[in-house]
Amino acid sequence: RIKASGLKLQLCTNETQETRENFVRKLRGLGFDISVAEVTAPAPAACRLLKERGLRPHLLVHDDLVAEFAELDKTNPNCVVLGDAAENFTYANLNEAFRLLIGMEKPILISLGKGRYYKETDGLKLDVGAYMKALEYACDVQAEVVGKPSKRFFESALAELGVPPEHAIMIGDDIVNDVGGAQQCGMRALQVRTGKYR
Amino acid sequence: RIKASGLKLQLCTNETQETRENFVRKLRGLGFDISVAEVTAPAPAACRLLKERGLRPHLLVHDDLVAEFAELDKTNPNCVVLGDAAENFTYANLNEAFRLLIGMEKPILISLGKGRYYKETDGLKLDVGAYMKALEYACDVQAEVVGKPSKRFFESALAELGVPPEHAIMIGDDIVNDVGGAQQCGMRALQVRTGKYR
Repeated sequence: RIKASGLKLQLCTNETQETRENFVRKLRGLGFDISVAEVTAPAPAACRLLKERGLRPHLLVHDDLVAEFAELDKTNPNCVVLGDAAENFTYANLNEAFRLLIGMEKPILISLGKGRYYKETDGLKLDVGAYMKALEYACDVQAEVVGKPSKRFFESALAELGVPPEHAIMIGDDIVNDVGGAQQCGMRALQVRTGKYR
Repeated sequence: RIKASGLKLQLCTNETQETRENFVRKLRGLGFDISVAEVTAPAPAACRLLKERGLRPHLLVHDDLVAEFAELDKTNPNCVVLGDAAENFTYANLNEAFRLLIGMEKPILISLGKGRYYKETDGLKLDVGAYMKALEYACDVQAEVVGKPSKRFFESALAELGVPPEHAIMIGDDIVNDVGGAQQCGMRALQVRTGKYR
């Protein structure tokens, strides 16, 4: 409907358990006519940021997300990138990420979102934000959050669309990540009462 | 030397990876004449607190500490007790503790200390404080910390000695946990330049 009306569309997601390719494949399977270029997600945004700043990441992310960082040099890391690593959030992996951070002259922790928890079919799970807080406390650093609600994230979606914020509207179900983030960026926003809305 | 002088002694430790019995056995092996009653540690202090308030704990602690909580009812838990669980800090165990907390009408999280990290022979490890912060963030609660530097912890050590704070002196190497905690409790404190002092 949106596409038929001639409006431009960009999908902003905080999904970090899989590549954009897989995410788009699932949506297409559900009947949505969407392409990879029409999706703004934290991992590609983090990739751009890492390249711009010449950072070599140590990844603590989901196995299915690693491919998004394929072109980056990951030897002798000078930052840690944290995503929703799920089963990869082991004691050993967390200690490894911590040791790398605390060993840096100025620790850089980049977090793909800062969600508190989410629901899966077998129950609630701690999201990336909880592990971000653990590392922030242990290393006495503040993470840089890539993804909603960060202003930079919405700006990159607007750049993809090629429109200024005042000509765009954000539609989402999350009052903080979707509506608040977009408004901080100068966009208007519309909250839908579906999904996680209560 | 302290004992020979006729002064009373109470050892305040934040050790939560083993029972007091094991801790004392190690110290005796090193030549220190010390008994279990002369050690104030977070787990027994937490036990007393749980009994006083009729709390049934879910334990996320080191295997070797579980014995300290033997006499408490742990069915249908109404609080979570977090210690330095080390290898027990698995993704599954953290999600389980989180789910119990978020499912409580008023989540109660009791943390045995709030250390950021510590050093073992194979390197630095995240301490209980980091995991405490993760659960605090996910559940939007504040943990109750049992152990140094909490005032209550020093008070229970003074009660064991049977002396008022103004007649006691705390000796330790940690400016926050040892010196600061004792001073807040009305004791004098002396910082030794050994151990973790820099």
